[in-house]
Amino acid sequence: MTTHGGDRRAPAPSGLRGAGAVLDTLANGGVEVCFANPGTSEMHLVAEMTARPSMRNVLCLFEGVATGAADAYGRMAERPASALLHLGPGLGNGLANLHNARRASTAMVALVGDHATYLKDCDPPLNTDIEQLAAPMSAWVRRTTRAAEAGRDTAEALLAARAGAAAGTGGVATLILPSDVCWSEGGSAAEVPAAAPAPADADAVERSAKILRDNAGCLLFLGGANLRPAGLRAAARIARATGAELLAEKSPARHRREPGLPDIARLPYPLDEALARLGGYRHIVFAGAHPPVPFFGYPGRPSSLFAAGCELHLLGMAPAALQDLADLVAPAGTRASHHVTGRPGLPTGELTLAKAAAVIGALVPEEAVIVDEAITCAPDLIAATAGAPAHDWLCLSGGSIGMGMPGAVGAAVACPDRPVLTLQADGSAMYTPQALWTQAREGLNVVTIILGNGSYASLADELARVEGVPGADLGRTHGISDISGLDFVALAAGMGVPASRARSAGDLAEQLRRALAEPGPWLIEAVLPGGGVRGA
Amino acid sequence: MTTHGGDRRAPAPSGLRGAGAVLDTLANGGVEVCFANPGTSEMHLVAEMTARPSMRNVLCLFEGVATGAADAYGRMAERPASALLHLGPGLGNGLANLHNARRASTAMVALVGDHATYLKDCDPPLNTDIEQLAAPMSAWVRRTTRAAEAGRDTAEALLAARAGAAAGTGGVATLILPSDVCWSEGGSAAEVPAAAPAPADADAVERSAKILRDNAGCLLFLGGANLRPAGLRAAARIARATGAELLAEKSPARHRREPGLPDIARLPYPLDEALARLGGYRHIVFAGAHPPVPFFGYPGRPSSLFAAGCELHLLGMAPAALQDLADLVAPAGTRASHHVTGRPGLPTGELTLAKAAAVIGALVPEEAVIVDEAITCAPDLIAATAGAPAHDWLCLSGGSIGMGMPGAVGAAVACPDRPVLTLQADGSAMYTPQALWTQAREGLNVVTIILGNGSYASLADELARVEGVPGADLGRTHGISDISGLDFVALAAGMGVPASRARSAGDLAEQLRRALAEPGPWLIEAVLPGGGVRGA
Repeated sequence: MTTHGGDRRAPAPSGLRGAGAVLDTLANGGVEVCFANPGTSEMHLVAEMTARPSMRNVLCLFEGVATGAADAYGRMAERPASALLHLGPGLGNGLANLHNARRASTAMVALVGDHATYLKDCDPPLNTDIEQLAAPMSAWVRRTTRAAEAGRDTAEALLAARAGAAAGTGGVATLILPSDVCWSEGGSAAEVPAAAPAPADADAVERSAKILRDNAGCLLFLGGANLRPAGLRAAARIARATGAELLAEKSPARHRREPGLPDIARLPYPLDEALARLGGYRHIVFAGAHPPVPFFGYPGRPSSLFAAGCELHLLGMAPAALQDLADLVAPAGTRASHHVTGRPGLPTGELTLAKAAAVIGALVPEEAVIVDEAITCAPDLIAATAGAPAHDWLCLSGGSIGMGMPGAVGAAVACPDRPVLTLQADGSAMYTPQALWTQAREGLNVVTIILGNGSYASLADELARVEGVPGADLGRTHGISDISGLDFVALAAGMGVPASRARSAGDLAEQLRRALAEPGPWLIEAVLPGGGVRGA
Repeated sequence: MTTHGGDRRAPAPSGLRGAGAVLDTLANGGVEVCFANPGTSEMHLVAEMTARPSMRNVLCLFEGVATGAADAYGRMAERPASALLHLGPGLGNGLANLHNARRASTAMVALVGDHATYLKDCDPPLNTDIEQLAAPMSAWVRRTTRAAEAGRDTAEALLAARAGAAAGTGGVATLILPSDVCWSEGGSAAEVPAAAPAPADADAVERSAKILRDNAGCLLFLGGANLRPAGLRAAARIARATGAELLAEKSPARHRREPGLPDIARLPYPLDEALARLGGYRHIVFAGAHPPVPFFGYPGRPSSLFAAGCELHLLGMAPAALQDLADLVAPAGTRASHHVTGRPGLPTGELTLAKAAAVIGALVPEEAVIVDEAITCAPDLIAATAGAPAHDWLCLSGGSIGMGMPGAVGAAVACPDRPVLTLQADGSAMYTPQALWTQAREGLNVVTIILGNGSYASLADELARVEGVPGADLGRTHGISDISGLDFVALAAGMGVPASRARSAGDLAEQLRRALAEPGPWLIEAVLPGGGVRGA
């Protein structure tokens, strides 16, 4: 028997509310948009947000949409993103895309509401250990315990997000806000110092310059912010001056492609191809990227992508380092000549992946933002768009599927004047399809192309790689990769996005032209071999 | 510079594979179904599963569907459930429904694949700290490090799941399986001892008997397995013999309602109603339930539902305790008389929540399994079904939305001969709509009724409770609760589930009759005031 001793009530308030201090500090740090899926414990944050024109509140119907949108927004807006999530379960739903944001080193503040401090110990039904859930995807986690600390904590979250993003160690800062901290007064907004560009490590620049000068046939491996125009130009100069080859990380957060810039190939995903690509070098200089490792292990296969004895030289994550390196090894005015690739012609006839890629390559508009969750379809699409007008390409940096359509939400909010094109595999589309509703609600200029092969094709490929295991033949395990029966035209209509189905290359070209010409979202289900609803 | 020292390769294999040892041990423990959303690191588990008729592999297109289905399966099948998830991000997507399973104390083994042990330290792109992500929702977490330990670890996971479920402390056991542990040989299946019923705490029974005998007007607060027929009969005898009143926990994992059994009201959700319901007692005996706490805190409102000085007596979670208590206080043959409630008549005219509830109350079939994620619509539905034939009612035990349609998958797999009826709010339907695809693929007998009010109605209610906050008026914050624009008939069609829209009470009755008469899934969008797609 326990005797209940009476209520523990919240203290009486006095001053600016904690929620207001959080939001005003975010505004001081340049945060203008919050992708939100709030619940009861976040109602005071929502109410204060509604009262502030400084913050645009974009409602998402699932937390994974909010975090995926915040990630892509941060990649494109060049200012920190924010997301608002409800307690531990809401954070749980957002974790997969926080993982991608972490690997993309996007600067982001994830606001997670929690129970009132005095109720937390009572363990209400939705109570969980939010710190523990947040830690694996976060560079920084803090729980604010008093309204007076809300401004300071928010400012430190922003600084931690920026620092982690700059260091390439992950820029997700998770701020846990108990509801009574939000509703209590006594808070004040904190200033957020302006960001300073990260300095180059002069020793690393010197060492890398010596390696590149002394050794023919080095590899310069590029990632992060070096895949933007300034970095790409510097890399081209270095290659021209030293003979180094260039390669980009497998899944850049944002990769600029533009006539006049080198179109650098990315590390391939399949283990054998990655080994073949990297295994021949004795020296690799990493600029804005960490040395890559295999995506997965396979029985009896290597755990490293490098040849024994290969020397790995880390130039560092700061874009300034690559600029300094170029200035050291390449005389001013060194220019690389670039192979000029034309656009593919428009194909005709029944749709295949190659033809879909050609249509996209032929029609992708100037200054498009391409959000790529095409998975097994991606290599064809990358190749076919090499000659397209200038565009930015956003990848699934953490490999955690479900980023595509949410990412398009974030990119379109960040860049309302640019067309956004989502290249979306059908299997991964089903992790966060709710993003389409936000695209419709906000009238975002997003064209989604579903590459419909009716299969978890990557799993079919991986099963084929499984050797010597009973039951591994694809026929018997077919049930795990066959995802037929999805009708994306109906799904889109269900969320208010107009849609069409393309069965021929001509259909796709016509529909893509029309979709790009009209404002607001559109979805095209491109029916590839294996895909499509029977009879539809 | 670091020099790469060569590959760390997997050791050469020899014996039964780890994956096989896991699956054979699960079979020994009575696990017959795995709700799966696997990835590359789980391919050996999938391959071994395909080779074993002992395990039915139910593919889900999102991890939250898999965990929600496993939860409801466990509640209905009276045997442990299992789910298969891919790495940390896949576990993340499954956490919200693992939270519900934890609060429902469902016995479940969550299998989470991980990178090969020798690759983990290299931090491949999808690497995360899975232990940390799993811990908040799990009663038990272990990483298997060698195939030789896979059988033993699986058996211990099953024992931990059963023990946690019996103790009411959460029955999710998370077993982390590196891919090389799964593919390596040297494993063997372990035996799993049969479960023994939990014994009653004789002292607690004696103390509760004395309290109930010595004090008029006690409350007997019931939960867990006591809301099944034997527990309900014992509770009715105790009430009859001692004058105690009966109340059920707010969100039981499984609540049996049947003519001849007492239909015990559940603790209401709104704080004021809960306070009014519980605040008048001096003694409360908890049988199979923990003392409840408020769902959320509000400024200046209490953190306890009990009057100061109220004595809380814990009978314990074992169903045997309630039986022993009944035998102590109630002479054999004591029977409670039950108020017999009739079914409501079939209403006509434009649909309202009250009319929808009446139609459902009039037509819910014998031995239905009702999965309730109706949120703000639930009280009307519970009241209208009081006179329905025997049925089981599954609640959102942890309050983490997204359990409804996945739960119906699990209930229908567990009980293929019973009709499953999902009572589904529209807002919460959008967390795990992918469940409809599995309903179609498996041909499950599930009728989903979407209660479409076009709103996050619970948030609108909660915003109205927020007092004295700038911007709290509902008009300006409307953007956070208005979720109009969803067309659930189209969404269902997009996943292969036939569907219809009911705008009148007559429509709903006709469509529900037809849906129940036909095999396989069906969805009805019941358009309530505020809901429906304009013009559709």
